[in-house]
Amino acid sequence: MNGIYDQGLARNEANYQPLTPLTFLERAATVYPEQTAIIYGDLHVNYSTFYKRCRQLSSALAKIGISRGDTVSVMLANTPAMLEVHYAVPMCGGVLHALNTRLDASIIAFQVRHAESRVLITDTEFADTISEVLAQQDLPLLVIDYIDRSLDTVGDMLGFCEYENFLGGGDSNYRWIMPADEWDAISVNYTSGTTGNPKGVVYHHRGASLLAQGNVVTTSIPKHAVYLWTLPMFHCNGWCFPWTLSVVTGTHICIREVRTEVIWTAIKNHSVTHLCGAPIVMSIILSADESIKHKLTKKIEFFTAAAPPSESVLTDMDKSGFNVTHLYGLTEVYGPAVANDWHLNWNELTLARQASLKARQGVRYHALEGLEVFDVETMEPVPRDGTTIGEVMLRGNVVMKGYLKNKLASEEAFRGGWFHSGDLAVIHPDGYIQLKDRSKDIIISGGENISSIEIEEVLQKHPDVSSAAVVAVADIKWGETPFAYVELKADSVISENDMIDWCQQNLAHYKVPKYFVFEAIHKTSTGKVQKFELRKRASRLIR
Amino acid sequence: MNGIYDQGLARNEANYQPLTPLTFLERAATVYPEQTAIIYGDLHVNYSTFYKRCRQLSSALAKIGISRGDTVSVMLANTPAMLEVHYAVPMCGGVLHALNTRLDASIIAFQVRHAESRVLITDTEFADTISEVLAQQDLPLLVIDYIDRSLDTVGDMLGFCEYENFLGGGDSNYRWIMPADEWDAISVNYTSGTTGNPKGVVYHHRGASLLAQGNVVTTSIPKHAVYLWTLPMFHCNGWCFPWTLSVVTGTHICIREVRTEVIWTAIKNHSVTHLCGAPIVMSIILSADESIKHKLTKKIEFFTAAAPPSESVLTDMDKSGFNVTHLYGLTEVYGPAVANDWHLNWNELTLARQASLKARQGVRYHALEGLEVFDVETMEPVPRDGTTIGEVMLRGNVVMKGYLKNKLASEEAFRGGWFHSGDLAVIHPDGYIQLKDRSKDIIISGGENISSIEIEEVLQKHPDVSSAAVVAVADIKWGETPFAYVELKADSVISENDMIDWCQQNLAHYKVPKYFVFEAIHKTSTGKVQKFELRKRASRLIR
Repeated sequence: MNGIYDQGLARNEANYQPLTPLTFLERAATVYPEQTAIIYGDLHVNYSTFYKRCRQLSSALAKIGISRGDTVSVMLANTPAMLEVHYAVPMCGGVLHALNTRLDASIIAFQVRHAESRVLITDTEFADTISEVLAQQDLPLLVIDYIDRSLDTVGDMLGFCEYENFLGGGDSNYRWIMPADEWDAISVNYTSGTTGNPKGVVYHHRGASLLAQGNVVTTSIPKHAVYLWTLPMFHCNGWCFPWTLSVVTGTHICIREVRTEVIWTAIKNHSVTHLCGAPIVMSIILSADESIKHKLTKKIEFFTAAAPPSESVLTDMDKSGFNVTHLYGLTEVYGPAVANDWHLNWNELTLARQASLKARQGVRYHALEGLEVFDVETMEPVPRDGTTIGEVMLRGNVVMKGYLKNKLASEEAFRGGWFHSGDLAVIHPDGYIQLKDRSKDIIISGGENISSIEIEEVLQKHPDVSSAAVVAVADIKWGETPFAYVELKADSVISENDMIDWCQQNLAHYKVPKYFVFEAIHKTSTGKVQKFELRKRASRLIR
Repeated sequence: MNGIYDQGLARNEANYQPLTPLTFLERAATVYPEQTAIIYGDLHVNYSTFYKRCRQLSSALAKIGISRGDTVSVMLANTPAMLEVHYAVPMCGGVLHALNTRLDASIIAFQVRHAESRVLITDTEFADTISEVLAQQDLPLLVIDYIDRSLDTVGDMLGFCEYENFLGGGDSNYRWIMPADEWDAISVNYTSGTTGNPKGVVYHHRGASLLAQGNVVTTSIPKHAVYLWTLPMFHCNGWCFPWTLSVVTGTHICIREVRTEVIWTAIKNHSVTHLCGAPIVMSIILSADESIKHKLTKKIEFFTAAAPPSESVLTDMDKSGFNVTHLYGLTEVYGPAVANDWHLNWNELTLARQASLKARQGVRYHALEGLEVFDVETMEPVPRDGTTIGEVMLRGNVVMKGYLKNKLASEEAFRGGWFHSGDLAVIHPDGYIQLKDRSKDIIISGGENISSIEIEEVLQKHPDVSSAAVVAVADIKWGETPFAYVELKADSVISENDMIDWCQQNLAHYKVPKYFVFEAIHKTSTGKVQKFELRKRASRLIR
């Protein structure tokens, strides 16, 4: 009871509105109608047109019956249409379901059926996969084909209507609807599902609004920034940057393919200021010939997640004109919710020390109330000693609404009032967290926890090794034991015994892998090693 | 009904927290403990200490019984204690009531009684006024004296305890409490009360959090900015900047007196990046001898409200190294909620044209859902023609909770689902609003609305005039007629007839003031002319 401060002071239409990122676009289009919103090849779209097209598309969706809580699936590359659906779908109350375009038909079919999608907007480039999906699909699904006119060839048309024609049937002055409640869903993003079926992570308008603004604070992205789309927008709604750019009335530079020359050309032609991406994007940038690289007059801000950037990559990125910031998050927290907030006096440290500080995942976004590393048994925070491993847990307004139609999984994920990330980490004395492993990737050998990341780091320091991945395999004596996949640099002639010697010099004896396989290590589009695949194969190999 | 997106996806501890600015300080102190939070003379306080002291003060307040919904009044200058109370009071659930230190005892007594204050923290400089208040006061009020050690003399001690001793009795590890609901009150700010008793404007945690972050977006204030306190913090909680600075872990430069030399010394010694203030602050800055002014290597951002900056002030500020942005707001909208968002291509216009664009109040903050100029009769938006006058109305999350213990006034202010500002304005074709008058200041003469601001602008363009204020007086023939107060420049020898000639050349005949008084025009500390005083006096003068 707050006494006098609760009397006659209730919410009303004048002093309360649901938080939503949709009003950011309305504002941008009103205040800066002529400002360029999207550049895609020769296409330039200003904010006035962008907003009109979003309303038009939203109106067209409403006309075919999309209303509050209806799912609209999209199979789109980083094209202008992908930006339009981020506004148009929720503007009529719909929930956006952006598909990972690299998934196979069976998983797509599962997701579309599970989300009870009513509409699918699909780029004709993906017609082969989608026609397989439609063959499996038994739900009534209206398909709209998007033709990317920058491509030389057009794939098969599968739907009842082409995107531009469909959009043309809508009203560009459509009075779009605010969410009835800021807790209403805005999108659903499926996790990759390392075990069992993919889970549908539901985002709401409140969280999307707060993370979109949180990105402004965390990345210090200024008014009219120029943002290059090297991060797939199907990945956690592009970490909410489709909405963040409207906050600052910035310019989206869309590119379809994340290739060296495309990136450098965009940087040169459009004076890019910010971009995000997995570590692989940095490799792609750095692989450019010196003839392609341009002297950058101003540092470009690069935000990366998924794996800590190495010292050599950081040094090379710095030389090439990029400042790299390490972020961390999961699908369940709208993309990044943890940032390696840099201290100015760290710039005075050696590059090696800077790299080790940058390898840490960091501290909470403002919109995240809590970030802790807990002992999973006791649910007590682990000591801040940089060595005791616990599970990363998060709580706050940018934690998902829950898993769609999966109450059990939601309850499991939220038990104890915290979201359980499944990632294992230490917390340093200064409060910065550092990931050590996925909880499934920890190796429990003779009762000791072994971090597979620690072993990988030792392996990767060997001058002949370009990449390494370590998993647990069953062991009669120890319960589990480490199994190492090692990818060697070209022309290396190192032997297994050399590798064992190296590990024995650099690791406690019980941490030295019992098995080694030398081969190229496959990584996903987001730069992650799929440990569950390696684990499955390892257990077959030792049989 | 949202169907599948509402099932098993309710709020829980993991995915929902009340919005509040308090967590910004906790984060700043955790991530950047060594960063300087406050500089006041020789005193430097880092974020770790600032946060500890706030918790300690909050704990001490809790010990004497302050809990949810209890008012704590403060009579403080822009000292470190004023920053501390902005966190410490709400950290134990209390509601901060910051008194305008220039008010007289009877108004203070009214406010303290009306807000049912339990505690008053008062700077001993104001002991004379406060002892008068206490003589009038019949409520049990615990008084704590704050001694500003930077002053040569200490005023009378009126309370039961000195601030540092009181704070020392608290626990610096106090587990402060989050608001039970983000709608809980965080502060109450009394309007100056041009008619009747002052009204207590109640702010909540949600609005304070959103405006504090909104300032970051609107002012592009970067991480570790250096902010100079030339705006009184008792004015709309310093436009929420006491909380904004924690978002960016910036440095507060406190100054007690807004004097030319003090400001320039602070700018020189601390590399100030941002400051806010009424137009008078610009005059004070510009009045410096060239010997005091420093060559600024980087433009300083200055945010002003209350009256549009003139072309000559803008030119002089620019020459002196300041970029001026015009904001608009009222106590009822947490300070500024409207900003003159600048367009880069406007920089290519003539200075006169730039000044006329800068004179406009502008467009809504992101946290404000709606800003409109309505015809008060029809509640329809006026045409966007830059000439039709209507009333400025605002709606959104940074509109007050309401007036304390004044349901009628709240209902009146919120009628039709919009907050009625009482300010009259036009809206330009590009959606930017421009104030023309307070609704009470409009002059209705022969059925025509005359803007007193329009007449003032004409008067102020006369080379001999330094300031002008126009009000309505009763007139038998016309109903009302304009009455002008004119302040002449030193040594001016202009006559009333000259003034009338000037007006006839520059104004429609019916707008020419019937009466002129030549005298110095008194302005309040926030740079406003108190029209109601002038109106009262004018009606006496024409009798």
